[in-house]
Amino acid sequence: MKKGQTSTSPKEAIFQAAVSLFYDHGYDGTSVRDIAGKAKVNPATISYYFKGKQGLLEACFTRFFEQYLQFLQEEVDALKYIRADLCLKRAVFKILKFQSENHQLSRFIWREVSIDSQVVREIISSYLMKERFYMKCLFEQGMIDRSFKKQPISFLVIQLKSMLTMPFLNSQHLREVWQMFPQEYYFVDQYYQNIDQWINLLMASDGSTDYKKELII
Amino acid sequence: MKKGQTSTSPKEAIFQAAVSLFYDHGYDGTSVRDIAGKAKVNPATISYYFKGKQGLLEACFTRFFEQYLQFLQEEVDALKYIRADLCLKRAVFKILKFQSENHQLSRFIWREVSIDSQVVREIISSYLMKERFYMKCLFEQGMIDRSFKKQPISFLVIQLKSMLTMPFLNSQHLREVWQMFPQEYYFVDQYYQNIDQWINLLMASDGSTDYKKELII
Repeated sequence: MKKGQTSTSPKEAIFQAAVSLFYDHGYDGTSVRDIAGKAKVNPATISYYFKGKQGLLEACFTRFFEQYLQFLQEEVDALKYIRADLCLKRAVFKILKFQSENHQLSRFIWREVSIDSQVVREIISSYLMKERFYMKCLFEQGMIDRSFKKQPISFLVIQLKSMLTMPFLNSQHLREVWQMFPQEYYFVDQYYQNIDQWINLLMASDGSTDYKKELII
Repeated sequence: MKKGQTSTSPKEAIFQAAVSLFYDHGYDGTSVRDIAGKAKVNPATISYYFKGKQGLLEACFTRFFEQYLQFLQEEVDALKYIRADLCLKRAVFKILKFQSENHQLSRFIWREVSIDSQVVREIISSYLMKERFYMKCLFEQGMIDRSFKKQPISFLVIQLKSMLTMPFLNSQHLREVWQMFPQEYYFVDQYYQNIDQWINLLMASDGSTDYKKELII
């Protein structure tokens, strides 16, 4: 069993301090010294575990995308047994809940992705290609088994991605202008209903599950 | 007639140079000297027209949001004569087309909004409150005249805003991962169809315009 992976380890304390500071002040606005101060460790400990600030940035992306992609992969695997629209809905719910529970990390990640620095692009290009692959699978299978009407998949993925990420990227705006709190479970629950409705729209029966059709297929 | 408002004026040349540099290198990564060099003017000319870099930032927000809000306001005004779902669709189309034609400015604006610096927040808070007001009007009127099913408006606005802004904010990602080009009219046309479908979903008749109902009301 590896040490340093429990929630109270110095490694985890450094990681959590970095997420919180990157969230508040951005990557460029945070120093290794700031992180060491917040995590109550010696800066050398950060070098030991993460080889410095860029290592921490990579750890943020890894932690976020490996979990995020796992939710998609689980549902792509489930396509063998379960209808595509249900798999898609389950992936959506898991991703919303995960982002809500990790709202600081999520906001930081999506903000960095939108900035498109060279460093970030190198780290994430393989993650984004995998995301594309899994999302395409979910929609394509839905069209093959006729759960979904035929339409250009890329536009659907962009719509879905927009809806999944925007509330977490613009969480400050949501709080200030709309008095909505994406970090609360209530938000996830309500917002999920709206995306669920949108998925229903994609379905061949124009807006709701057609159980008769399902029985025939 | 005011001078300095035609497309070839020094003022406009400075503005366009600033947008292009802010887009490529961000606000912090761009100096007044860079802008002067690109616009082929003396740095003093920038001070004269915009009082420096922050004045240019404010000019970017003003140019973007005044046009953006005008599209929403026109359709809110049209609610007296035209059904709310049609007004909403027209606003969506105008906003997508405007962002596509001004894709560098749009991306820069949405990126700055997501960063939530204190400066930006002060500039934009009144714009975002107006945006909220107009979007609420469009959905509320749709529910009053029963074009739309009753449901929480704030969640609908967040969904709509997500879909309107994300492709322009993440344009690099769209180009690299999806080979889609938000600055092309083809994109606007196709993507609009998807949002149009989403608006149809909101309608009381579950997915498509019910002309009989319209006649009765």
